[in-house]
Amino acid sequence: MIALPRSMPRTASHVLGAGGSRQGERRGMLARVALLGEVDARTFAVLDDRYGVVRMRSGAVANKRALAACEVLVTNGLQGVTADELDRFPALKLVASLGSGVDTDALGECRARGLQVTNTPGVLAEDVADLALGLLIAAVRRICVGHDFVRNGRWPAGRMPLTGSLRGARVGMIGLGKTGRALARRLVACGVEMSYHCYRTKSDIDYRFWPDLIEMAKYSTILVACCPGGDATRGIVSREVLSAIGPRGTFVNVGHGSVVDEPAMIELLETGRLGAAALDVFADEPNVPEALMALDNVVLQPHQGSATADARHAMSNQLIDNIEALFAGRALLSPVDDDGAGDY
Amino acid sequence: MIALPRSMPRTASHVLGAGGSRQGERRGMLARVALLGEVDARTFAVLDDRYGVVRMRSGAVANKRALAACEVLVTNGLQGVTADELDRFPALKLVASLGSGVDTDALGECRARGLQVTNTPGVLAEDVADLALGLLIAAVRRICVGHDFVRNGRWPAGRMPLTGSLRGARVGMIGLGKTGRALARRLVACGVEMSYHCYRTKSDIDYRFWPDLIEMAKYSTILVACCPGGDATRGIVSREVLSAIGPRGTFVNVGHGSVVDEPAMIELLETGRLGAAALDVFADEPNVPEALMALDNVVLQPHQGSATADARHAMSNQLIDNIEALFAGRALLSPVDDDGAGDY
Repeated sequence: MIALPRSMPRTASHVLGAGGSRQGERRGMLARVALLGEVDARTFAVLDDRYGVVRMRSGAVANKRALAACEVLVTNGLQGVTADELDRFPALKLVASLGSGVDTDALGECRARGLQVTNTPGVLAEDVADLALGLLIAAVRRICVGHDFVRNGRWPAGRMPLTGSLRGARVGMIGLGKTGRALARRLVACGVEMSYHCYRTKSDIDYRFWPDLIEMAKYSTILVACCPGGDATRGIVSREVLSAIGPRGTFVNVGHGSVVDEPAMIELLETGRLGAAALDVFADEPNVPEALMALDNVVLQPHQGSATADARHAMSNQLIDNIEALFAGRALLSPVDDDGAGDY
Repeated sequence: MIALPRSMPRTASHVLGAGGSRQGERRGMLARVALLGEVDARTFAVLDDRYGVVRMRSGAVANKRALAACEVLVTNGLQGVTADELDRFPALKLVASLGSGVDTDALGECRARGLQVTNTPGVLAEDVADLALGLLIAAVRRICVGHDFVRNGRWPAGRMPLTGSLRGARVGMIGLGKTGRALARRLVACGVEMSYHCYRTKSDIDYRFWPDLIEMAKYSTILVACCPGGDATRGIVSREVLSAIGPRGTFVNVGHGSVVDEPAMIELLETGRLGAAALDVFADEPNVPEALMALDNVVLQPHQGSATADARHAMSNQLIDNIEALFAGRALLSPVDDDGAGDY
């Protein structure tokens, strides 16, 4: 994602690292790729070997000359990119983001400068959908509670209470991009009733479409946020939406922490006015509110949606292939189009 | 299930409770239904109101007269029924079991006496399949580990390691009855490759059939036991089978604790020769080996497969409907046929 949580401005603190890469120096050439945030060691090694990479590190001093030749800026969902950062690259042509969703704000900044933008959609959708399904079932069937029940030796003293079920469940999806569709396919196989809310109806989808999110939340027993961050989705899972899901309902978020009113969600979970939640994303990652950690009607994950070796390898390859295409003058493999700015 | 773990003989200790039901006494009639083990309050109330129920409780003294008129014996998977118990019912016509699987040993005893046997198949298959899917994903994607990672405040100090994925997974099912089929349908939607091992190939199934379980285990990355207990399946998930799944493989058991060599499984999990396990059933429920509780590559559940309010209500209705059919002289709704003695 080219995602920029508003609560985390980084313009002043994210500056160029002390030195470029050894590979770039050895060649005596300026690096052609700049790296904002972290990528895995293999991705770095491949890019550095081919093009030279200059890392931008938090707290270091900017070096205008090192950025002068950078045509590509690699970023990721948690790092994103700001207007100030973009201003520092005179030769920039491409912002290549590792991840699927795209923040519409950051995308707008790139569009205004005529920059191309790529992401790595699709390759992680199936893994995110698997985790979302696992979290949804874990919340409804209280798998983590049961796991602790056994591990704490409580079973011999009596049965764990009966749990909810997916029988008769009505699932409302917020966002129906690649991840949402992959999850919906799985849920249909579980026999639930599917419907969705998006910025527009999808002509190739048979699930019921709800133009009004609150109406969908009232109808649904389970609400799943599967949409990107950014202004278009900020806070759309409001107190009113969460209340509409209700005391027997479940909220699942694998989209972006910014889509939900987190304080309201916590209050409703604490008072039983929202039944349960399964959360892979949070407003201020990696900081999770302590109040959430204390609840037993939540399942919490440290943003593991695409955190599998397979998905990360495929994402890395897609990122590298896009950069290679740019330098070879070929068409980009997965450019972000304005419409696809989201899975929303 | 009419399941009788061999390790838990109960013939001497399970005898008739002190008194019959008040309803039966009020009528001045002998109870027509005997109850072995526990059922939920609603089921008891309905049966007692219609036919009078005599409870058989552990540690109480037998009362021949109270059992004389019982035509139905209600039992469940954990209680089962023994030959000695059956001998005490001169008027018995039906053993009605709350649950899906049927232990072939107990079934044989009933057959030898000309007793009819019913179970409650189907109504719980979908709920068990949901939980099995949730446990499988939880094991592969380490959901309970991630949950603890967040709750223990470890996320700000660094990322949780990458996990396994279902991409490219090959799932081998042991048993393909109603539950197995419901789970397979879900797994196909997750994009995995399905195959199965049963006592015979199923003509209406396209998944690859393996007559040899060890060969299937070698081929599979995930092995799921979805079969009943009893002699036919005792210990079939042997040390050799578990070793064949391997260090990167996962074993899931939602069938019966007796199907797996539990000590071998624990040893292989402890030493990393079996990657992970997700277990809803155990050899000596509700007692779970402490060694299992200490492992972080397992997901443990207190036999929650059908422990949803919906499934239990449906099971209860099916049990009551069978008993009503018997007393009304109608055909039983879900008699156990010899072939269907298992989902295996």
